Formats: sequence, C-alpha cells, structure tokens
Amino acid sequence: MFEAKQKDIVKVPDRVKRALKEILGEENCLDDPMDRLLYSYDATRIKMLPELVAIPQNQEQVQKIVQICYEEGVPVTPRGAGSGYTGGALPVKGGVVVSFEKMDRILEIDEDNAVARVQPGVITYRLQKAVEKVGLFYPPDPASYKYCTLGGNVAENAGGPRCVKYGVTREYIMELNTVIHTGEIIHTGRPTLKDVAGYDITRLFIGSEGTLGLFTEITVKLIPKPQAAKTAMAIFSDIAAVGKTVKDIFKAGIQPSALEFMDKLAINAVEDFGHFGLPRDAEVLLLIEVDGHPKALDDQITEVARICERNGAKVSIAKTAKEAEKLWEARRALSPAVSKLGRVKINEDIVFPRSYLPEALPKLREIGKKYNLKMVNFGHIGDGNVHANFMIDGKDQDELKRTEKAVEEVFELALSYGGSITGEHGVGITKAPFMKKQFRPSELEIMRGIKKVFDPKGLINPGKMDID
Amino acid sequence: MFEAKQKDIVKVPDRVKRALKEILGEENCLDDPMDRLLYSYDATRIKMLPELVAIPQNQEQVQKIVQICYEEGVPVTPRGAGSGYTGGALPVKGGVVVSFEKMDRILEIDEDNAVARVQPGVITYRLQKAVEKVGLFYPPDPASYKYCTLGGNVAENAGGPRCVKYGVTREYIMELNTVIHTGEIIHTGRPTLKDVAGYDITRLFIGSEGTLGLFTEITVKLIPKPQAAKTAMAIFSDIAAVGKTVKDIFKAGIQPSALEFMDKLAINAVEDFGHFGLPRDAEVLLLIEVDGHPKALDDQITEVARICERNGAKVSIAKTAKEAEKLWEARRALSPAVSKLGRVKINEDIVFPRSYLPEALPKLREIGKKYNLKMVNFGHIGDGNVHANFMIDGKDQDELKRTEKAVEEVFELALSYGGSITGEHGVGITKAPFMKKQFRPSELEIMRGIKKVFDPKGLINPGKMDID
Repeated sequence: MFEAKQKDIVKVPDRVKRALKEILGEENCLDDPMDRLLYSYDATRIKMLPELVAIPQNQEQVQKIVQICYEEGVPVTPRGAGSGYTGGALPVKGGVVVSFEKMDRILEIDEDNAVARVQPGVITYRLQKAVEKVGLFYPPDPASYKYCTLGGNVAENAGGPRCVKYGVTREYIMELNTVIHTGEIIHTGRPTLKDVAGYDITRLFIGSEGTLGLFTEITVKLIPKPQAAKTAMAIFSDIAAVGKTVKDIFKAGIQPSALEFMDKLAINAVEDFGHFGLPRDAEVLLLIEVDGHPKALDDQITEVARICERNGAKVSIAKTAKEAEKLWEARRALSPAVSKLGRVKINEDIVFPRSYLPEALPKLREIGKKYNLKMVNFGHIGDGNVHANFMIDGKDQDELKRTEKAVEEVFELALSYGGSITGEHGVGITKAPFMKKQFRPSELEIMRGIKKVFDPKGLINPGKMDID
Repeated sequence: MFEAKQKDIVKVPDRVKRALKEILGEENCLDDPMDRLLYSYDATRIKMLPELVAIPQNQEQVQKIVQICYEEGVPVTPRGAGSGYTGGALPVKGGVVVSFEKMDRILEIDEDNAVARVQPGVITYRLQKAVEKVGLFYPPDPASYKYCTLGGNVAENAGGPRCVKYGVTREYIMELNTVIHTGEIIHTGRPTLKDVAGYDITRLFIGSEGTLGLFTEITVKLIPKPQAAKTAMAIFSDIAAVGKTVKDIFKAGIQPSALEFMDKLAINAVEDFGHFGLPRDAEVLLLIEVDGHPKALDDQITEVARICERNGAKVSIAKTAKEAEKLWEARRALSPAVSKLGRVKINEDIVFPRSYLPEALPKLREIGKKYNLKMVNFGHIGDGNVHANFMIDGKDQDELKRTEKAVEEVFELALSYGGSITGEHGVGITKAPFMKKQFRPSELEIMRGIKKVFDPKGLINPGKMDID
C-alpha cells in the first residue's frame, strides 16, 4: 500500500489542453513535466504525475474545467495544499489536477452572524488569525494548519487537538458551493444554525475526499474566542494509567479544550529536536488544556491536576501564558521531530472509544515490538484518536513488509474495539484496502451508489476510498 | 397544503398481512379501522389512513417487515410519537405504518465513553432524565420532548431552545443501525468523536425524514451536565430592538444556552392560560439563559442584562432556581396556550441569519396584518429560528386561502434573507411544495438520485419532501 501505482492513466487530449489554456491562460495551465512533478505528491510521498495542472482563479473557471473534462472523459483531481496523509490529492488515473492555490480569498467575515465566507484555497491559519482579530474563533486545528487549506479541510473533515471540546470541521461548515460533474454549481446548506430542508448534502460533501465534486466556496461558522486558557503537563510512568486518567477527567464533568499525549520515543524525539525541557525518562506525557471564562479555569485545572496525581502522575501547571506556549510549542514540534527518526513516516490515525484506551495503548505498543519497528505513538487521546507512527527507511523491502503487517494489525486492533481506521486523515489511496474491514458489503454498496449519483463516469478524483 | 390527500393508495395483500401477523403476532399487526385511525394523524391534523399498522419489538422484526413489504410493493412509513408538524409520519400512499412504540428500551448508558445506545421508540425526556442521573446531558430539547421519540428526532434532526449553544440532534448522533429496502441493516458511524472513513451516511440519514430507511438503534453522544444556569427576562416595547439585542449578546462573546422570544399575542396567551405574571403590555419578551461553571455565570448574566438595558429593555434576573423555573414554565406553556387562540394552529418554523432579525421581525408581523390573520410569533431567536403561528378556524375557506398565501409570503421572506423554510420541523407533506423555492432543480435532482440509491421502488415513506 505504500507503493501504490497509477493505473488506467488518461492522457489529456490536445483539444482539451487548448480549451483549458484559453479559459485559464497559459500560465495557469501547466503541462511541462517539471511543473507537473510539483503537483505529483503529498505527505504520503507516493508520486502520481498529473497530465496537466489547471489553476483556476474563480468559480466560473472551475465550472468550465469540470464541464470540459467530464465531457471528454478526462479525470479531475482537486488539490489544496497537498498536505494529506492518505494520497487524497494524487491523480490515480492521471488527467487534470485542479489546484486551488489562486482561489485563496477570504470573501467576507460577517461579525453579526458569526460566519466567514472563503474560497477553498485559504490557508486555515490565515482564516483563524483573521477572525481572531475581531474576537471570533475558528476551532479546527489540524497539525498542518499553517499550510493546509479550507478546501482540503472540508474534503477530509479535518480534526486537531481542539476538536475534543469543539468538534471537527464538520461542525463548522454551514454552506458549500460545489461544482458537480455537469459543471453546475450545487449550493448546499444555509448560514444559519438550524436548517432541516432536504437531505444534508453539505455533510455528505464533508469528508468525501473530493470524490463527489469540487468545492468553490465555503461558509464557516465562527464562535466567540475563548477568553482564557490554562495548561497542565502530567508525567506518567505507566501507560495504562494514562487511559484511566483520560476517562476520569471526563467523568469529573470537565471538557478539556485539548488533551494530548506523547509516548517516550516521541518525548525524546522532541527533546532532541528542540530542547523544550520535557522529561526524557517519562513513559508518557499528557498535555491538558482547559479554556473558557477566567473565573472558572483555576478550579478546573486544579481538578485536572488532582485527577492526574491520583493516577500516579507528576503534574505541573503552566503559571504564565508564556510557559503554556512553550509546552504547546513542544507538542507542535512533534511532527518534524518524529520525522527525523526515519526517512519515511507511516502515520496512522486510528480511533478507539475512550474507555478502551487503558487496554489498547499497551497492545498498540506490542505491535511495534512484534514487528521490530521504530514506533512512535502520540495524538489526541481525549477523543481516542491515536497517531501510530512507524518510522522506517522506506527502501528496505523486509522492513516495508513488516510495516504493512503491523499497520494491518493496528487497524484490526482499532476495529476490534469498535473504533475507526481513521480519525482525521481520511481513506484516500493508502487506507482504501481497509475499507472492507470497517464496512460490510451492503454499506460499501450504498457509498458506491452515492458516488454514482454525483459521478456517473467515475472521473471526479477517481481511485480513492474503494468506492469506484 | 393544509388539506393534503392520500394518493395512489396501495392496499396490503392478504398474504402480506398473514406473513406480518406470523412474524409480529396478531396483537402487533392492526388492521381494524378503529386501530388504524389512531395511527392516521400527527400534529398537522391531516389524516391519512394506513392499511395496516405493524408494531415490531426488535430489529429482526423490522428487517422482515421491510423485506416482505418491499418485495411485494407495499409502502412502509415509519412512525415515532406522531408529534411532527409536517406530516412526516403519515402514510401518503397507504400501505404499512411501522410504529416503534414497543422498541422503547434504553439499551446502554456508557458513562466511560459518554454515549448511550437506545431503541428508536425511547422518549427524549426519558433518555434525558436517565443520563442526568449519572451526571451526563443530552441537550436537544424539542418542545415535544416529553412525548416525542429519539427515532423521530433523528429523522427530523430535531432542535429546541438549547440548540443555540449545544447544536441540534445532528451533533449528538454517533451511530445508527438502519434497515434499508433489502431488509439488511446498515451500520453507520462510530461511538467516537472522530471517524472519517467513508462517506458520512449517518448524517445523511439525520434529517432524512424516514425516507431512506428505518432506524432500529441509535447511539447518542452525551456531554457533562452543566453545573449551573442563570436566567434573565427582558421586556421590550420595540420589536426591532430585540433583533439588535440578540446580535449584541453574541458580539459580546456570550454563548447563551437559550435565547427565546415571544411577542405580545404570545405573552397574553400564556398569561390567559396560566397566570405566570408576565407583563401583558410588553411588545416582546426575551428569556435568556446562560449555563456553565457557577463562578462565570454572574458575570455573564449581568453582561446580558446590561446589553438588554442598553437596547431599551426592562430586565429582571431570576434570583433563585425556582424563579427561573417559573419563567421557563411560562415558555413551555406557550404551545398549549397559543393553541387556545384558534381551532387549528399553522406553525411555521422559518430561519433567518441572526443579523437580519431587526429588519425581518417587523416584516413578519406585517404579513399577518396584511392577510387579517391571528398571528403569534415566538421561538428560538438566538439561532434565528422563528415560529410563526397562524391561529385559524380551519373550516373557513376564505381564511384558509388567506393563510396559504400568508405562509407562502413567510417562506419567501425567510428565503429572501438567505434563511430556510424550516429550522426544526422538516419538510414532510406540508412544506413539500416549497422545496422548489429553496433548491435549484440540479440540487433537487441530486436529492432524488440519493433517494433512488436507498429506495429504488419508492416505497420507503413515499410522497414526502418532493424527492420521489
């Protein structure tokens, strides 16, 4: 699965190239091999070369691209920042990659209704900063938030640390404009908290990985920016105690705004990377944040600390915003730090129902040992979302085979507890072989039926999710 | 639209009746006209007689009912409490009504994972009380919560006052078992906060009004029960000032847990009904609740009061829980109280983006005046969801015609501001003629395509939502 190959590649006929160049201008229609190479990979490091890269600047251009390609039988694969971990933006069948890099305008921040209307190429972080300036808040915060785009976030239903309290991207998308196979725009949703007219096509699009249509405009819900936050760090010598602590925090009626964990290997990788002062001998480290009204926070963080201590942890509460920021910097350094442990990072984002964490976390670690692999576990433990990373060389065939087997066992472990093979990254190419494990044939049939409604010819981001 | 009639009625062949009686037992298979009459109406007061009422006691029986009926071409219409306002539970084409009254078990309250698993016939209020006993909270609170069922709540994506802070039913459904046309069970979703494998069929089912399949098991998300709440009442003499107040509260960064309004006619109806001590001369009354950590609440309710006063209101803050409860009792008395103003209540639940309320509310009132109708407006103004009620005799043909025109103008007003024709009640039969106003033909085509995937013969709750 780590060496997925393109198949049934569709070349782009010259008349289509000419037509697209006419619509977009030469400079926005790339068919030079070097240019195309730049759009041939994502964070999986799998490479799939598009036959042409189209860079629209507005909705009408997207409509025309899709209309022409669809009529001519040319596959169309939408692309945001290419930061995905499952190959969602890769052109399995060649054809045209539609890059949204020039559709990156924040069209409106409507303070009165607490919504923002953006183009799909807007970077998540840019939107967050822009709305924070007027006291509003866009919570979803995938690790790639400084370069990923809203369009990709919608396609993958992106998550992040804050989602444990605030919910995932799905909870913040109010309206979508989506170009469907005919080149028409489907407008779904309303900029209101309630709307129950017709089927919820908006939410069907969210997490559809670009296989149903191309988003051209997104209205997001904003909420008041939390007034304050407090962070605690808890150090555990026993991994099972961590699972219990997580359960206890929620049972005490506390909704943390982040509840992150990293294991020993992760802690040491971060320390090697940036010297943040984390305890190298800790088995597991928890970062816990609570946010909200300043008057409530002291009570809450103290209660969190008490729960951690009761479960055997050493706890320190950040005294200043600066101290807290340093802890979060260490957390954010995880991804680049861990990447140094191996040439290739196989990053699986499984999910467990919270209550099974005490049992599942040690079993997860066993899998790494069994296959003699460098395995780093960290993630959003508050919502049961564990990032199991295998750091490998990527060229050693035996190691690759062991990793494939280990990943399969990781998925089976998550599913055996009623969890999911993916909490944030989506299915794309790399997890497509595992859809059959999570879904029954009748369930996959329904998904394939829906795919056909939106894409009868199978040309919209084909070859993904095992649904075409 | 208020006198919708059954059409293309499908009789139930004797062999189907015999088969169902065998499966369910004679006592759970009602074909006596008097029995069937009991299942022939909902809160719309439109009557549509089923040919047979089937009362399954478990999932397997639902599977068999659907399988047999579907094979034999018999329409199947699921029914919860029959409390809907748009005719969703009425058998437009006759056939079999499947009543979930005996599938009313709370199967599991899982405190560790903060989820509950229930059968579709569980009454919302019963679930709420059961989870509150263990410190958990199920927020959605439709006005009918004391008799409506979870299955109906999922089908209609039910709302309520608290949704302004906590979100609608959609935000609390984690997993569904749904019997589809083949009689197979589709299991969708996971009992985890994150899960992005495959299309989001769970959310497609939510709000589908029972037109895609029959829910047989529902897993809901629970959250910690808020520790405390404060309520304020604000009295306005100017309806436009109310709209501005609502905007100002949100702009101050306050997320009220309820923000309800009632107009003069509503206030007086409630006073006639129960003598709650509401001010009869007020033009508009706002009820505002904030909840959360006790230490934060005083600040928040004081700030709310200040904002109301700045907009010209007289404000009183409930000093005790008992005082607050009295105010909410008055709010809950609204529905029965308003019902006394006319034999028939035509209750439309339109939605406006918040910022347009100052402009839209006076216009709404004008529509009532224009058509010389008794119009009572109240609702969940915090999320722009206004219940516009026309209280009519129901037999006066001229009044009926005027009401039809008024309702049409009410919908047009909501849509002209980018709102929705329904925030809570769904489309069903009564709003089906207006789907064309909210959606473009290409958007309706997509919905019809999806309907066909789940229901190729058009037998699952047919005749609803203008999608078959």
